[in-house]
Amino acid sequence: MDRIYGEMAIISGTANPPLAEEICRYLGVEPVAADVFQFPNENIFCKLHQSVRAKDVFVIQPTCSPVNKNIMELLIMIDCLRRDSAGRITAVVPYYAYGRTDKKDQPRVPITARLLADLITVAGADRFLTVDLHAKQIQGFFTIPVDELTALYMFVDYFAQKRLSHPVIIAPDIGAIRRARNCAERLGAPLAIIEKRRALDGKHTDMFNLIGDVNGHPAIIVDDEVDTAETLTRAVRFLHERGAKEVYACATHAILSGAAADRIRESGLTELVVTNTVYISPEKMERMAGRITVLSIAPLLGEVIRRIHEGVSVGELFDE
Amino acid sequence: MDRIYGEMAIISGTANPPLAEEICRYLGVEPVAADVFQFPNENIFCKLHQSVRAKDVFVIQPTCSPVNKNIMELLIMIDCLRRDSAGRITAVVPYYAYGRTDKKDQPRVPITARLLADLITVAGADRFLTVDLHAKQIQGFFTIPVDELTALYMFVDYFAQKRLSHPVIIAPDIGAIRRARNCAERLGAPLAIIEKRRALDGKHTDMFNLIGDVNGHPAIIVDDEVDTAETLTRAVRFLHERGAKEVYACATHAILSGAAADRIRESGLTELVVTNTVYISPEKMERMAGRITVLSIAPLLGEVIRRIHEGVSVGELFDE
Amino acid sequence: MDRIYGEMAIISGTANPPLAEEICRYLGVEPVAADVFQFPNENIFCKLHQSVRAKDVFVIQPTCSPVNKNIMELLIMIDCLRRDSAGRITAVVPYYAYGRTDKKDQPRVPITARLLADLITVAGADRFLTVDLHAKQIQGFFTIPVDELTALYMFVDYFAQKRLSHPVIIAPDIGAIRRARNCAERLGAPLAIIEKRRALDGKHTDMFNLIGDVNGHPAIIVDDEVDTAETLTRAVRFLHERGAKEVYACATHAILSGAAADRIRESGLTELVVTNTVYISPEKMERMAGRITVLSIAPLLGEVIRRIHEGVSVGELFDE
Amino acid sequence: MDRIYGEMAIISGTANPPLAEEICRYLGVEPVAADVFQFPNENIFCKLHQSVRAKDVFVIQPTCSPVNKNIMELLIMIDCLRRDSAGRITAVVPYYAYGRTDKKDQPRVPITARLLADLITVAGADRFLTVDLHAKQIQGFFTIPVDELTALYMFVDYFAQKRLSHPVIIAPDIGAIRRARNCAERLGAPLAIIEKRRALDGKHTDMFNLIGDVNGHPAIIVDDEVDTAETLTRAVRFLHERGAKEVYACATHAILSGAAADRIRESGLTELVVTNTVYISPEKMERMAGRITVLSIAPLLGEVIRRIHEGVSVGELFDE
Amino acid sequence: MDRIYGEMAIISGTANPPLAEEICRYLGVEPVAADVFQFPNENIFCKLHQSVRAKDVFVIQPTCSPVNKNIMELLIMIDCLRRDSAGRITAVVPYYAYGRTDKKDQPRVPITARLLADLITVAGADRFLTVDLHAKQIQGFFTIPVDELTALYMFVDYFAQKRLSHPVIIAPDIGAIRRARNCAERLGAPLAIIEKRRALDGKHTDMFNLIGDVNGHPAIIVDDEVDTAETLTRAVRFLHERGAKEVYACATHAILSGAAADRIRESGLTELVVTNTVYISPEKMERMAGRITVLSIAPLLGEVIRRIHEGVSVGELFDE
Amino acid sequence: MDRIYGEMAIISGTANPPLAEEICRYLGVEPVAADVFQFPNENIFCKLHQSVRAKDVFVIQPTCSPVNKNIMELLIMIDCLRRDSAGRITAVVPYYAYGRTDKKDQPRVPITARLLADLITVAGADRFLTVDLHAKQIQGFFTIPVDELTALYMFVDYFAQKRLSHPVIIAPDIGAIRRARNCAERLGAPLAIIEKRRALDGKHTDMFNLIGDVNGHPAIIVDDEVDTAETLTRAVRFLHERGAKEVYACATHAILSGAAADRIRESGLTELVVTNTVYISPEKMERMAGRITVLSIAPLLGEVIRRIHEGVSVGELFDE
Repeated sequence: MDRIYGEMAIISGTANPPLAEEICRYLGVEPVAADVFQFPNENIFCKLHQSVRAKDVFVIQPTCSPVNKNIMELLIMIDCLRRDSAGRITAVVPYYAYGRTDKKDQPRVPITARLLADLITVAGADRFLTVDLHAKQIQGFFTIPVDELTALYMFVDYFAQKRLSHPVIIAPDIGAIRRARNCAERLGAPLAIIEKRRALDGKHTDMFNLIGDVNGHPAIIVDDEVDTAETLTRAVRFLHERGAKEVYACATHAILSGAAADRIRESGLTELVVTNTVYISPEKMERMAGRITVLSIAPLLGEVIRRIHEGVSVGELFDE
Repeated sequence: MDRIYGEMAIISGTANPPLAEEICRYLGVEPVAADVFQFPNENIFCKLHQSVRAKDVFVIQPTCSPVNKNIMELLIMIDCLRRDSAGRITAVVPYYAYGRTDKKDQPRVPITARLLADLITVAGADRFLTVDLHAKQIQGFFTIPVDELTALYMFVDYFAQKRLSHPVIIAPDIGAIRRARNCAERLGAPLAIIEKRRALDGKHTDMFNLIGDVNGHPAIIVDDEVDTAETLTRAVRFLHERGAKEVYACATHAILSGAAADRIRESGLTELVVTNTVYISPEKMERMAGRITVLSIAPLLGEVIRRIHEGVSVGELFDE
Repeated sequence: MDRIYGEMAIISGTANPPLAEEICRYLGVEPVAADVFQFPNENIFCKLHQSVRAKDVFVIQPTCSPVNKNIMELLIMIDCLRRDSAGRITAVVPYYAYGRTDKKDQPRVPITARLLADLITVAGADRFLTVDLHAKQIQGFFTIPVDELTALYMFVDYFAQKRLSHPVIIAPDIGAIRRARNCAERLGAPLAIIEKRRALDGKHTDMFNLIGDVNGHPAIIVDDEVDTAETLTRAVRFLHERGAKEVYACATHAILSGAAADRIRESGLTELVVTNTVYISPEKMERMAGRITVLSIAPLLGEVIRRIHEGVSVGELFDE
Repeated sequence: MDRIYGEMAIISGTANPPLAEEICRYLGVEPVAADVFQFPNENIFCKLHQSVRAKDVFVIQPTCSPVNKNIMELLIMIDCLRRDSAGRITAVVPYYAYGRTDKKDQPRVPITARLLADLITVAGADRFLTVDLHAKQIQGFFTIPVDELTALYMFVDYFAQKRLSHPVIIAPDIGAIRRARNCAERLGAPLAIIEKRRALDGKHTDMFNLIGDVNGHPAIIVDDEVDTAETLTRAVRFLHERGAKEVYACATHAILSGAAADRIRESGLTELVVTNTVYISPEKMERMAGRITVLSIAPLLGEVIRRIHEGVSVGELFDE
Repeated sequence: MDRIYGEMAIISGTANPPLAEEICRYLGVEPVAADVFQFPNENIFCKLHQSVRAKDVFVIQPTCSPVNKNIMELLIMIDCLRRDSAGRITAVVPYYAYGRTDKKDQPRVPITARLLADLITVAGADRFLTVDLHAKQIQGFFTIPVDELTALYMFVDYFAQKRLSHPVIIAPDIGAIRRARNCAERLGAPLAIIEKRRALDGKHTDMFNLIGDVNGHPAIIVDDEVDTAETLTRAVRFLHERGAKEVYACATHAILSGAAADRIRESGLTELVVTNTVYISPEKMERMAGRITVLSIAPLLGEVIRRIHEGVSVGELFDE
Repeated sequence: MDRIYGEMAIISGTANPPLAEEICRYLGVEPVAADVFQFPNENIFCKLHQSVRAKDVFVIQPTCSPVNKNIMELLIMIDCLRRDSAGRITAVVPYYAYGRTDKKDQPRVPITARLLADLITVAGADRFLTVDLHAKQIQGFFTIPVDELTALYMFVDYFAQKRLSHPVIIAPDIGAIRRARNCAERLGAPLAIIEKRRALDGKHTDMFNLIGDVNGHPAIIVDDEVDTAETLTRAVRFLHERGAKEVYACATHAILSGAAADRIRESGLTELVVTNTVYISPEKMERMAGRITVLSIAPLLGEVIRRIHEGVSVGELFDE
């Protein structure tokens, strides 16, 4: 192969070290030796132990909890790499926080997903690599090239192998429909939608409708992330009420904030399938034992990093 | 009122002069005298007949047909205004073309909606004012402040006054759901969705499903624009097949390209309600006679321009 | 040769496909497979059928008629290439529209030639390659590196081979003098200038003077482009009146808008020599039959593209 | 007064609400009503309850603990204000975190103080107002105008009123000399410097020297911030060993991270004088009771905000 | 008058203080008190003695000799004004150096006129005001708004009042034709052109031709600047050889480098008319005594500054 | 070695040609043939005699006297290289002028060191290489990567070899302390500081204190530059008064403006050690004969240029 970029270098922030290690193993490389830590005054510091001059560097840092600290750490690492004369810097952010703040759906609010794109760019990233953005339009918030991967095919394969009998794919809210539809199309299954209706007088609680039919069928809820799991567990209850035989769910990003793990354990959900874009502590895994399956995104990220580095097509990987 | 900006000035490109005139009448101002025309070699030229130095200028130019010429004209007018030392330039683009190219839903395609935002900004616009973007995320494609208005409340009021008996609101495809849901919520009506399923083997034709129920009810299709009217007229047939009593439709932008006017006339549609963001020729109006109702967006745009100029809240106009 | 840039890739817009094909033949490469087309709503779309990741891409798109559509197409293709991670993008625009709007020669007008440079840059081009700009200062409108080629040497060689007897070189207006002088210098011929004088009272028509002498000599008019051919054909009549034996003309860009082809056929012009920077339809060629000679710029563009790709001097090609 | 900017508006993040309240009281204005909070997934959200369109907005947010969350909150608020069409946005950051990471004093480290300046600027701030930067060069990290205030005169006045007998001013390390010298000059007192010498063989502990003399005199340590208080308390011990009669200290920013409050209580320090740029919890105040004096910076910030808003000189306030 | 910008403030660099003073007198304002000087190490320093916060500042600094020092001084003053929070900064550069380096007329040279525009912009200027650029395209090198004034009307009026008998207007080289033509048109006089032809074999000296006729007429040479006066004095000799009765010249910018003053004195030129955009030392004036007439550009600059400040049309001043 | 960048090319401005030649000899390359000169009107021009297309170019130009001309020359050369399509441009500025104007230590002054960084960047430099900046924070004024070298180790080695008996390292003012401390630490010597105290009533002259002790010891003054040598020679006298046995000095940059050479000759200084970052004329060398030692920085710069070109670590060169 002709050399176009400098040598590949992988460096990890503190957000999800096991994922970075798995990617390094896939690629057969050692990560760049570096200290990334906080001083007692919470100021993050980064000190590389080896030069990245002219190298083709990939910084792996999902912006999961602690979200704001991990964002700042990412930006500071990029600044450090740029000032050490990295040849090219790809920010690898398997989970992109603030994705839901991607539009002004009410007046006088920020569009933080755009702001974050600008921050990453001004810090010095040359490229951006991510997985399952909350909305595909977020790609357009960047001017640097973006590669967005999806875990959807992994989920489709996983459920296809289960051979459920006539499952119905469920969009748990309006925002999840496109994703659910794509899943339904590939599984050859019908689609149903849970619609939340705000009580406009502001007094009564929200109402939920099921648009479509699930009675007597297994249901598979499809979403991009599980956050507090409130929407998810309410959907499970609601689907059971509407006669679903059993309820599965899949979501790329296992945020699992607050009491999410407990809610999932007690939800009546048969199985929640997620990936490891976000680090899940062993303690949380324990609390959801038997309910959660984690598929690894590392081989996909590793393969795409290899292709980006070698300058060959990423799209062909997905046969598109 | 304290003066913060220079005097208000309204200037119109050639895309929709009647709309600009109506806005000027609302505001009680004369438009800036200018020549905007094409040389025989198609090069667009702009020559102001009066100075806009220090003024608070609003350029009114929806990017409707001829789309690319109108875009270039907008950019050239902005350059002209900037170089004549306009105090502030607001691009008023009631219809934003290329809104559907807002994401990479397949590899190796552009995100033209972002590109267009960059073009308008680099030409020198300080602000952007528009109506019903195809996706709200497009606001995030801009760094300059954006005011996005909606015709939805006008449509809701219009249909509320019709007092239809138990209408069902229809999203004609996945992309229209959010808009349809908002409409349904305000009319207190149920929602149904037409889902298109691609035939994955590539041989058979696309399949359509109705998620939800319309049997015996009047139906109101809600979308952001009517382009070729193929989706619309197919939806009308489909809804009639599923037992809809009568079918209405509303859409902010009446693009009406190709044979759209004929399709609408022959569609079995009871009434299509649109606005005048896009200029509709008398000839086209004629062809759709009796089927189409055009509500004017000019008072809304005029009022918002006044508020932007005076530096008072726009959001309060909508009681939000 | 050491590899500095990725593999060469040529892609053509719809402005002048025969020129692009000829360049590809010269370089012995296949163009990038892509669809570039307009939807019924006139929105241009671009879809690459193969990846250009890391490649050294040259987009060939003169901004000839339809001018504004071709400009937008160029910008959209650049955006598409950038977002597909092209290694380097060179906009190859053999004819640069709006070149005459390169200054404010009256108040309250745009400088569209600068605007266009900014649009191309913000879309993502890394370099710019063009032929015979209307004014050389337009290079300074770009910050990205520009290679400007000239067809002048081709015209000089062509007329030198004709061995005309003591020809006089004619600048048909003030703006063409520098170009005519360079031509005269290389052909060792005298220079004469047609000066247009505006009637300042605004009532009478413009007056023309010949500065210099053409009586009894063959004349060669030198200009950068032939647009409506009004200036050209008036110059031909004027030169005949002043005693020119026969009148030739050369111009790089054959815009030929409006009735230009007919004017040229009936002008009394012995021969008009142009290049193929701009696509000339067979129908137009037919109308000017026997009056027009088209020299191909493709070998020159091809050779310069090769040199840019290999990182070797372009200037040496011209022995400068 | 002529109106140049829109109406003044003050808005506070969650970093130091009492300081913001005190500034508002000084200015006699109500803060902008807004919700600034975190969702369960730690994403910060900001929702203004009133429009800031065209207003002259000051966002008050020192980047104290939790540092990284407060930085992100500041950036998100700026984005929100910009997108709500604020007329001018001044970021008021009385304490600027990451000031010590202002240079590469070793290879392969970031310059986070510059990065932070870029983040604030890209988010949309028009001006920057701060107090006692760690190094004055940090002003040069910004291109937007900066007003840097100092608490030094407040400290000088405070100690002048104490009428200590022949005090010696102490720079506790090399970085604090300039500040200590300025203080010494204004108090007409001699200067002494504590120099830390790294043990170059890496085995032994650091050595400290006193350059200058303190024997029999009261000492006043001058620094910009007290972080863990380790440097401070070691300096107190060291000065007592060298015969200082009693030891005072002053520092603008009371970071007080880790066990700082306990160290200060037990340090033998007679009095530590700080300001309220950073919020100090009542619990921490309690732990340092009798040892710490907090001077309010609010009147100074309030007065400067008023002058910035009215467009009158800030420098004259300091008689410079 | 409504106040749009802050109070007007005029500040002068060291390039042409008498011009600045004359402008201030015209406007009835005192210049901003400031020290602008060089340290012994040649570093330029600027210290304002009064605040320009929020003011509408005009920096008057033609980039005449010492050219590079005056450019740097201009940039440093702009930086100083920006960092002192000037409300708006207009760089008033009556003479723009490096105007002849406005294009690549040979390979491997800079376009310094563009570079200079970028330097002025990055330093922080909001507007640019100048007189008679070498080429009008240089306006397009700026993105900030430019007002370019011309001394041409002053020269036309001056020569019209002389009532010369049938004068011929002379372009002393190709680059001066447009300017000479405009002058000829307004004076109703014929145009003649001196053409320099390079000896292409590189051995012989350049040849000169007169295109047009001057025999028996007074001649008026029109150019933008007189630099070494070599071109000018050669033109005078040449025109006398061709029978001109007497030779006048006018040029906006009296650079007069090297032995220019002596050449002019001894040239046989009847009168050289210039303006005071560039400072001419009394000593130089002395050397050209009786040959040179200096018209003041100060009232024109003063009037335009007033109009820019008040936000009223500049173009109307010229009845265009 | 794999090729990442194009071929190395070295080009020198007129600031310090002997240094550039020495660097070329170290690297074994010929400099790029070019003319860099001033026209009679002082306009600097640059014309390359060979193409630098795709090359990895290093422009060597310390910004020493004539300072402002050398800065402009540097910027113009960078523009020229960029427009000739250089692959990468590294500005090698061994002496960075305006380093002392790196902060606003009084109101209403510029931060020229930041401005200069912006000018170099906007002209088109991709990297920056320098020696001993006045303050390390100046690195943060750049966003492009900076390599800052130091002559300190050369000085330490030089004085270590002298084996002076118990020398004391002297910081001649507050600003030089950090540098002096680093030197002291490496030589294992004590540190003393000369403190200048302004007379605050403005009437009396400045006062000097020695903080620390030098009696009976050789003294080594450490500074970054020697400008007028006033500070230096006053320090020599002062140290002799305080009992220093003999006084040495070292400083990276030998500016030597005004009467510096004479002052040094007559100062009583035993030896001044400097480098050749700045060109010292033979005449000046003569005047300081026997007092000055010039160490060459060329091998260090050459080695670092080689490493930058090859993409290998620079930091490892210093064993850091």
